Amino acid sequence: MSPPLIDEYLEECRELVLDEIRHVVPTRSRYGPALYDLMLDYPLRSAKGLRPAVCIATCRALGGTLEGVLKSAATLELYHNAFLIHDDVEDDSEKRRDEPTLHRLHGVPIAVNVGDGMLALALTPLLDNTRLLGLGKALAILQCVARMARESAEGQALELSWIRGARYAVREQDYFRMVHKKTSWYSFIAPMRIGALVANAERARLRLLGTVAALLGAAFQIQDDVLNLTAEERVYGKELDGDLWEGKHTLILTHALATCSAAERERALAILQKPRPSATRHASFERVLWSLRAEGVLDETAFARLAPLLEQQAPKKTPEDVAFLAGLVRRTGSLDYAQAKAVARARRARRLLAQLTATPSVHLRFLEMLAEFVTSRAR
Amino acid sequence: MSPPLIDEYLEECRELVLDEIRHVVPTRSRYGPALYDLMLDYPLRSAKGLRPAVCIATCRALGGTLEGVLKSAATLELYHNAFLIHDDVEDDSEKRRDEPTLHRLHGVPIAVNVGDGMLALALTPLLDNTRLLGLGKALAILQCVARMARESAEGQALELSWIRGARYAVREQDYFRMVHKKTSWYSFIAPMRIGALVANAERARLRLLGTVAALLGAAFQIQDDVLNLTAEERVYGKELDGDLWEGKHTLILTHALATCSAAERERALAILQKPRPSATRHASFERVLWSLRAEGVLDETAFARLAPLLEQQAPKKTPEDVAFLAGLVRRTGSLDYAQAKAVARARRARRLLAQLTATPSVHLRFLEMLAEFVTSRAR
Repeated sequence: MSPPLIDEYLEECRELVLDEIRHVVPTRSRYGPALYDLMLDYPLRSAKGLRPAVCIATCRALGGTLEGVLKSAATLELYHNAFLIHDDVEDDSEKRRDEPTLHRLHGVPIAVNVGDGMLALALTPLLDNTRLLGLGKALAILQCVARMARESAEGQALELSWIRGARYAVREQDYFRMVHKKTSWYSFIAPMRIGALVANAERARLRLLGTVAALLGAAFQIQDDVLNLTAEERVYGKELDGDLWEGKHTLILTHALATCSAAERERALAILQKPRPSATRHASFERVLWSLRAEGVLDETAFARLAPLLEQQAPKKTPEDVAFLAGLVRRTGSLDYAQAKAVARARRARRLLAQLTATPSVHLRFLEMLAEFVTSRAR
Repeated sequence: MSPPLIDEYLEECRELVLDEIRHVVPTRSRYGPALYDLMLDYPLRSAKGLRPAVCIATCRALGGTLEGVLKSAATLELYHNAFLIHDDVEDDSEKRRDEPTLHRLHGVPIAVNVGDGMLALALTPLLDNTRLLGLGKALAILQCVARMARESAEGQALELSWIRGARYAVREQDYFRMVHKKTSWYSFIAPMRIGALVANAERARLRLLGTVAALLGAAFQIQDDVLNLTAEERVYGKELDGDLWEGKHTLILTHALATCSAAERERALAILQKPRPSATRHASFERVLWSLRAEGVLDETAFARLAPLLEQQAPKKTPEDVAFLAGLVRRTGSLDYAQAKAVARARRARRLLAQLTATPSVHLRFLEMLAEFVTSRAR
């Protein structure tokens, strides 16, 4: 199996899971337009569908059936997309998967409610599991999903409190704790654990897979952060250096701030305090003005009188600021440092997978390839 | 039992449920400050605790135990408060239970995340139920909670789509459908059903209680809307005529718009399109300016130049506008009409309760009193 085959495996799982989701989401109901139709928006945008694929592959690699795991995989995808909707509100992101975010399209009230509705609806396939898998197994899966949702909220709380406190210099161990909760739990730990539960994996294998998943989650997130600063925009599909403009908490930035000179550190922290020119986390005056104009609250005359004032606002990050940060992470070797950490984790995950002693299959191969691919991928 | 005894029953249940919630919410964890501590904020503010009390009373009236129902009652209270946090974000409400709303205190990102964390944590007591009540009963309760969360999201979607479409003249049956989903389901239907499930109620009783709960929910909501326009502010504890300022969808307004003259209707709809002067649902320019000033985005000079423009914004509701609406609902007899609908529903609920043929107890008496009290209460 070569990376194109990873894409094929992902694509096949994605189709199966989308079919399952279409069964769960009642789009023809009278509540469709403002609720259920919107639940399908993010899932139908172009995406890898990594989480359900990891769940399905783990289950089948351990001898479980596709039918047994499909409902749980659909739940994971619904949760993932509900988190994305709420995350986009929380970060006031402009775009998701190359299109405007849900709250930009339909307003914050409807976006928050659609996310809540998805979290409620995501319980349905898990309750259907009782008929399919029996009460005990269905409950173990529910327990895992509840834990996953809680870990995600804790990880999010950690990062939001750093943002609110304008705290950019965090300890490496705090960064890894945040990623473990915010990324690893719902991207790898829960998918692998649930796949293994469906396949009746014994305790030792569940533990082993838990370690593999945590390692892969950290490697995956670090690679994502590296790509943001190094990839070709055309291939990567996201804004380059966006993390520096946003002041995102990454291992790269954490390492750079910890190893640069005191003067560099002072300048970097001053830059990081500044919002980005548009789409800042807090109300951007510019954006507010435009939206008030669009809503007709401001007429043309009022807007024309206000526009010059845009120049006088609190300082924003400049291209020079971001170039300084980009130079800093290069000077401190932070990209290499972070990538080495990611590669070490991915390699350990790959070695541990060998201890699974599972019968060779395309599903096991997918997981092994994923462990190799997670730090070499270009998107 | 007289109304003071209703208060005593509510207060006793509230203390028991808060103890249970304190067990579930790990406030001493390192994630406390930005997550778990905030989960306790709303529940600890002065409130009636109606939902858990209805759940406990139903269970015990049917011979179930307090111990058996307490965890589920705590889940209902957690869900209720998570909904309130997200509702306050969605409506951009300023106050909740006489204090600033969570997102006004800590920002939208943290408020949305705290609500999500509560929804995840609320599953814990339900999963603990498996040990306490057995797998089958625990799953039936989970199923009911999942349905409740979904009904609430549907009710909310209905109202949000009316608001977004500036639709104020809705049909009475649409109003009742919205209230059934938005209020009755999580305030009465789920609490009574779950209490009855814990007490091993047979199917016929579950059905009967479902009807009682739907009737009580509608009566409760209508009375709430009547109080908003008639109560003494000191007793009621909320802003008087707030619903008219907000343009809230009530049975009163629905009836008034359906029965007034064409000219009155035109004027009323024109008024209802206008936002209220402060704290409008959409970005209020005034509020945005003040918050930008508070955050230091606007300096004093810029603010001084902007302030005069406040006068030139799109027209807002005036006290005369609201007085016109208040006069309209009185002229059309809509308050009496709505109250009569509420009383009829409450009386039918009271009569149906008699068919429960449950052994007399303080718990049954509480439910009976509640059915009488729900339309005569002053707060």
